[in-house]
This record gives sequence, structure tokens and C-alpha cells, in this order.
Amino acid sequence: MKIIAVDPGLARIGWAILESDGDSFSLVECGLLQTPKEDNLPKRLSEIHSKITGLVSKHKPSSFAVEELFFSKNVKTAIDVAQARGVIIMSAQLTGLPVYEYTPNQVKQAVTSSGSADKLQVGKMVQMLLRLPKIPSPDDVADACALGLCHLFSLR
Amino acid sequence: MKIIAVDPGLARIGWAILESDGDSFSLVECGLLQTPKEDNLPKRLSEIHSKITGLVSKHKPSSFAVEELFFSKNVKTAIDVAQARGVIIMSAQLTGLPVYEYTPNQVKQAVTSSGSADKLQVGKMVQMLLRLPKIPSPDDVADACALGLCHLFSLR
Repeated sequence: MKIIAVDPGLARIGWAILESDGDSFSLVECGLLQTPKEDNLPKRLSEIHSKITGLVSKHKPSSFAVEELFFSKNVKTAIDVAQARGVIIMSAQLTGLPVYEYTPNQVKQAVTSSGSADKLQVGKMVQMLLRLPKIPSPDDVADACALGLCHLFSLR
Repeated sequence: MKIIAVDPGLARIGWAILESDGDSFSLVECGLLQTPKEDNLPKRLSEIHSKITGLVSKHKPSSFAVEELFFSKNVKTAIDVAQARGVIIMSAQLTGLPVYEYTPNQVKQAVTSSGSADKLQVGKMVQMLLRLPKIPSPDDVADACALGLCHLFSLR
């Protein structure tokens, strides 16, 4: 089974395509999608739509996982991320895939068995579970990988 | 010149199509787009995308105005509206129309000459400027009409 996991953002969006044969998990591809701050909001949002649609079309996953928003940052940032997240979820829905949402705590809990794990701990578990030479970077990409693993665990 | 103005929301979205011949303004059509709370977020967001795209396709306006977010409500509401607003702006951009954003204060200022006008005052000016038998209702629709007028004023 192949899935796509997306860590939403306006300027930086981590994504990961993971595959599972039931017992083990592997990373098919992951990356960071960036939209330039110089571009206006409509252009950045349609760029996100187009890239997300392109990823689904290329990899043909069977479901789509998106991380819930985390509200510790300032309101301006939360609004930017929420606008982009709306576009990501809508783009997922338009591809016809079932969309699953997980909170940051659910992801940490699933991957490390602790809802309060730090980034490094999550990163190390991602590296181990996906048998990678190092922790995926930057953080946005590692987060997408962790989200993808959480989603695969919850589908089992 | 014909324009579309949209007051963003997740559950309730006011929209208005206005026309201007340079001197006077008229309301072509306005309405309230609602998404059912029983539907999940992906479905509601793609419904919004589809309806907005349909309105542009039907009325063929030459530009698209969207209201900026107003942050007085709780964070959960702000996030819901922001996710929907992202979808609305992206949908507008995908139609190829230029997208304009105005703050609630800019709209009030443009329509009533006061940034602190109340809803009734804005509604009455909308009624007068568009020569309507009564204030458009509900508020979301009156707000969209006011936004549309603000946009037409600023294009002059």
C-alpha cells in the first residue's frame, strides 16, 4: 500500500510517499515544496494546489494524510498555514483519495509511543523505521515522514 | 465592468456579482453559499471550490475581490475560515482572474467613509448605492455587496 503524507505550510510544505507491505515500511520519495515569499498569496496557493495534485498523479497513492494545525505560533502564521492547509485538503479531496487528519500529538505518540517526544526523538524513529542512512531533513520533511508512518500504523 | 466579491467562511460564504458603468453600480446577483456541518472538511472545501468556480464561469466577471480575515473571533473559527479562504483565493486564481484583498476596515471606510461603521450603517449604504428595495440579507451577503462596492470604488 502506498500513501502520501503532507505537513502543511505556506512557505514550506514537507511531503513523503511511503509504502508498506504490511510488516515493513519504506520511503518511496520525500521532499520540500517551497513557495516564494515574493509571490502573492493567490499565486502561492495555486502553486501548492498544482504541486500536490502533481505528486498524487505521479505516485498514485491510495490515501492522503495531512497534519492538523498546531497553534503555538502567532496568529498570522496560523492563518497563513490554515489557508494553505485548506488548499492542500481540497486538492487531496479533488484527486478522489480518502483524506485522513492527525494531530501532532497523535503522530508523536504513534512513532515514539510518547505524545511529548522532541523533534530529534521523532526523527530518529523515522530513520530507524524507514531504515534510512540519516534523519530526513529539513524538519518539515522528517515531520511528513513521521505523519506517513502514523497513518500507516493507524490503517493496520 | 462586472466583478465578483466573496466574504469568506466555511459554513457560510456571502457572494455578490456587481456591475458598474463608471458612474452607477448595480447588483447582478448575490447569494449565500452554505456547506453542511455534517460533511467532513475535505468535502466542504471541495464544495466551496466547485461553487466558486461555477459562479465565475456563469457570470464571467473581470476581477475577484475577497475580504481579509478579521481576528476577533476564537482561534478555531479563525482557522476554519482561513482554510476556506485559502480555497476561495486559490479557486479565484485558477480561473485566471486578478484577485484583490480588502480588510473589513477598508470596506467600511469605502462604503460609509468611516472605518468604525456598524453593520446596519454598512447595510443601509449598500442598499442606497445599489438602489435596492431593502438591505441584502443575511449579513454575509450584505458584507459581500459592500466588499464589491469597495472594490469597484478602488478600481476607479
